[in-house]
Amino acid sequence: MNTLLTTVNEIFAAEQFVHEPVRLYEPIDYTLRLGGKRIRPVMLLAANRMFGGSLDTVRHAAIGIEVFHNFTLLHDDLMDRSPLRRGQPTVYRKWDENTAILSGDTMFALAWRYFLVQPHHRLQEILQCFNQTAIEVCEGQQYDMNFETADHVTVDDYMMMIRLKTAVLLAGALKIGALYADAPAADIDHLYQFGIHLGLAFQLQDDLLDAYGDTATFGKQTGQDIRDNKKTYLYLQALQHADPAQQAELRSLFSSTPADSDDKVSRVLAIYHQLGIRRQVEDSIQQQFLLAQQHLDAIRVDDSQKTPLRQLMDTLFDRKK
Amino acid sequence: MNTLLTTVNEIFAAEQFVHEPVRLYEPIDYTLRLGGKRIRPVMLLAANRMFGGSLDTVRHAAIGIEVFHNFTLLHDDLMDRSPLRRGQPTVYRKWDENTAILSGDTMFALAWRYFLVQPHHRLQEILQCFNQTAIEVCEGQQYDMNFETADHVTVDDYMMMIRLKTAVLLAGALKIGALYADAPAADIDHLYQFGIHLGLAFQLQDDLLDAYGDTATFGKQTGQDIRDNKKTYLYLQALQHADPAQQAELRSLFSSTPADSDDKVSRVLAIYHQLGIRRQVEDSIQQQFLLAQQHLDAIRVDDSQKTPLRQLMDTLFDRKK
Repeated sequence: MNTLLTTVNEIFAAEQFVHEPVRLYEPIDYTLRLGGKRIRPVMLLAANRMFGGSLDTVRHAAIGIEVFHNFTLLHDDLMDRSPLRRGQPTVYRKWDENTAILSGDTMFALAWRYFLVQPHHRLQEILQCFNQTAIEVCEGQQYDMNFETADHVTVDDYMMMIRLKTAVLLAGALKIGALYADAPAADIDHLYQFGIHLGLAFQLQDDLLDAYGDTATFGKQTGQDIRDNKKTYLYLQALQHADPAQQAELRSLFSSTPADSDDKVSRVLAIYHQLGIRRQVEDSIQQQFLLAQQHLDAIRVDDSQKTPLRQLMDTLFDRKK
Repeated sequence: MNTLLTTVNEIFAAEQFVHEPVRLYEPIDYTLRLGGKRIRPVMLLAANRMFGGSLDTVRHAAIGIEVFHNFTLLHDDLMDRSPLRRGQPTVYRKWDENTAILSGDTMFALAWRYFLVQPHHRLQEILQCFNQTAIEVCEGQQYDMNFETADHVTVDDYMMMIRLKTAVLLAGALKIGALYADAPAADIDHLYQFGIHLGLAFQLQDDLLDAYGDTATFGKQTGQDIRDNKKTYLYLQALQHADPAQQAELRSLFSSTPADSDDKVSRVLAIYHQLGIRRQVEDSIQQQFLLAQQHLDAIRVDDSQKTPLRQLMDTLFDRKK
């Protein structure tokens, strides 16, 4: 795992992203140099190696998947009006909106350029996977925006949305890595499902940590989603299990933005507590985690080959063995 | 030519663009149903047929190139804050900015989907051509935006910009059509250069018509570029040939937005007249037109195969033989 991350970081350090016109490429370089956990390229490399692939065939695809991911962040930050990304000003704040639009578009094209460097006898399949993933990520972002103003969002709707917005890109990165190594179809399916369930578990954990995380390690103020009236898994799960009075209070709290938002957070957390939401969400995460594990177990390669992906799971969920 | 346009229109009429989430795909369908001359898919089909290709192999690529072109229009309209496109409200006006951003991104991905339907032994080359074109179109848009605020833009800078923003997509459409028909490299090069010079001639003519076109046939108010202080080929050519006094007046006129813009247009046109700009631009168009013709002539297929592209040239430049 750490070896793979080092490899990814070396690949990015060696890559030149600034060209003419500089005004177009500087924001791209800036975005890609902000860092991040590089989970998607690490997963792509891990999947490739698991089936005996070689780094040279997937080096460019690993860059491509991360460039694509950062393109989605760049445009999402503009659409969500987020001022900061990894503690630094977002592109539309540091430059302007048009820069965010056009440099983002160029990043999307650039991602394709990386995927098109290497010939491969399954290239069409690889690119179809990448493209299907890209379309689904856009659909996920649209559902996310729809939900902001929708009156009735169910837990199932939410799971569908985070599958598209978050999970398919992790699953796609794994599948692409495996395709480059010419893995068997059944194993690729298991790997893809592993990625889906891992992604779902990861997003649910993100929702949970927002309400119950340790501020110091999580790096965000607790309850930010509640303050922002975000319809998270916790909120939707609570609505589903609440009695009419609790439902009314939740809906009322989630349509207000009071000056004293700490009080609002306390009142929401009190309802979550009455309904046992924390435990329910922990169970759901565990369930997704186990499904992920089953799919990983089912892949027919030597178990030692799975070590990096098992380590990745442990890192993401902070489970020391 | 007309047969090809009919074919393209039939292909688009038969295509379903609306899917779930409807909020994402409706603006895409709206954009693609606004019509337009469909020049790029027509050129792609014409190039393919010229080398003996069959419609079934390029049907999806023809849709893809037009979807890509309309994606660039959608995002350009947002960046330029244009209220109308083909006489109808632009997407960011009819819906909102976020819709324009995300539906545009999805259109770009959708263009790729069409290019990925058909297997082809030169698919990597075809996709590299499409991708290179996409990147250059973004670069062209960036130069165009740079020039708005730049103090010194030369005629050469301008030619470079319109080559990227307009000409490479026409050239790319032709090259892709020829690649699908497995045309020889030398012919593909000539075809590409034909597209470049045709595109340059077309953009220069567009600049000329803005100042001297017949309002009734051109469909726009004469002198709109002058009112908008747009650094067109006419303006830059005039600056290059003007004496210091004329230069100062031109610069002053192009940094003002007076209430009486008709007077401004008259004064600019008077300087153009003194410098013989109209004739110079007509000569430049003729020069690009002849270069295009030479490259078309050089392609080694039976001359009858070139009829559709010759007709296209005549249509675009309204030259009856």
